[in-house]
Amino acid sequence: MKTVSENRCFGGTQGVYTHASDATGTDMTFAVFKPEHATGAVLWYLSGLTCTHENAMTKAGLQAWASDAGLTVIFPDTSPRGEGVADDDAYDMGQGAGFYVDATEGDWARHFRMERYITADLPETVFAAFDLDDTRQSLTGHSMGGHGALTLALKRPDRFKSVSAFAPICNPSDSEWGIPQLTAYTGDPAAHDATVLLTAGAKLPPTLIDTGTSDQFYDKLGTAAFAGALTETKSEATLNLRRGYDHSYFFVASFAAEHIAFHAEHLA
Amino acid sequence: MKTVSENRCFGGTQGVYTHASDATGTDMTFAVFKPEHATGAVLWYLSGLTCTHENAMTKAGLQAWASDAGLTVIFPDTSPRGEGVADDDAYDMGQGAGFYVDATEGDWARHFRMERYITADLPETVFAAFDLDDTRQSLTGHSMGGHGALTLALKRPDRFKSVSAFAPICNPSDSEWGIPQLTAYTGDPAAHDATVLLTAGAKLPPTLIDTGTSDQFYDKLGTAAFAGALTETKSEATLNLRRGYDHSYFFVASFAAEHIAFHAEHLA
Repeated sequence: MKTVSENRCFGGTQGVYTHASDATGTDMTFAVFKPEHATGAVLWYLSGLTCTHENAMTKAGLQAWASDAGLTVIFPDTSPRGEGVADDDAYDMGQGAGFYVDATEGDWARHFRMERYITADLPETVFAAFDLDDTRQSLTGHSMGGHGALTLALKRPDRFKSVSAFAPICNPSDSEWGIPQLTAYTGDPAAHDATVLLTAGAKLPPTLIDTGTSDQFYDKLGTAAFAGALTETKSEATLNLRRGYDHSYFFVASFAAEHIAFHAEHLA
Repeated sequence: MKTVSENRCFGGTQGVYTHASDATGTDMTFAVFKPEHATGAVLWYLSGLTCTHENAMTKAGLQAWASDAGLTVIFPDTSPRGEGVADDDAYDMGQGAGFYVDATEGDWARHFRMERYITADLPETVFAAFDLDDTRQSLTGHSMGGHGALTLALKRPDRFKSVSAFAPICNPSDSEWGIPQLTAYTGDPAAHDATVLLTAGAKLPPTLIDTGTSDQFYDKLGTAAFAGALTETKSEATLNLRRGYDHSYFFVASFAAEHIAFHAEHLA
């Protein structure tokens, strides 16, 4: 692991690091916010389409609240990157659009192994490098990262104490944000669909969702289908539909304090 | 209006009163909690099947928080009562089960006019007798009273600043708690169904719903259908699914503070 930068932030440290990933076969960049009074508890923040490790680190405003709660926040990248890595002209396919799955199809299969990266490679690096408690992990994300948070939690019912999401894609097997990408990467969108997994019996830890009623991508998110799945399965969950908020980081930042408080409660 | 009793409560007064109602053609009993430092804002609390004005007044634990917020809380009865009033042997039909509609069918039509009672007769009495601000009203309820709160708010989009419900019946036209009663009273269950009204274009004020995942009547509530309607219509709403809570007043009391805070914010 190499240090790219470290900045003093709310009395703690906002760092950016690189490491070589076996999962992706590339170098990967990630960010870690370490609060001054870290409890050891970890919150993973998965970003959305087109983002790197950097967007949420600079725009989501999580550090103020994470500092108060003593949570260490980790911001991974959203895909492998580089010249030898497959890509697509579309903004929502290829680099910057990993969808948090392990690709098995075509050229994608070589590097696009983001599920393994997020759940194995990066934790191995992070838990070796920082003084953290791997029994206290929670997961959040925005948009495609909300899809990642929900599906990775559903696939690992014992790993995360809580999961939350900002404007998550939650029914990707019925969305333009899901069908083309998950078909290209894996051939099986339904296997990576939070609504489908939950309905089929997978369990969620305590769950918090915020979505704006003026989200310009509302029709791609599948919020109604996921709300139906949460209620049908009697999952412990809060769904907030926030009047007038859109899909931006202004929306994420507006509810960052509530998501941090939610995770801090479950990580206590 | 006659005073039945008044008790000192959190520095204010918990009163019980009777009045003659034109709507029901009977004497009706209701309770009012007047906090020591009343702001004039009013919260209507509609109770569930089998309840009178008394159950929530004694078991929901609202007064502590209403006192802090300066909210006056009004607890109506759930139906007309008495020897000359129609009834049924079932606990969920007839007296104690008014469903907050105006009956038009059979013997029910004579006295079962609870929608008019709650929205016209009782407000007229209460606003004449107490120093309250009719421009600042909100509405909550439990179970059948949650159905009442949601449907009365949907039918009067400008009257209530906010609406909340504890374990509401929210799709009664598809439930044993709704089809027999609303058919007997009105012949048209769908006309008094929150999910149907919302889907058809009626508007809700800001909405808060809490329902327990161990609610023994979960299958009668229609929570999934209503969650779908909230998300499809992009209504400003919070839906909390609370792990392990059932349908009792222990559940209501556990989240009373949050509902009072929600309404106080919108009534400020």
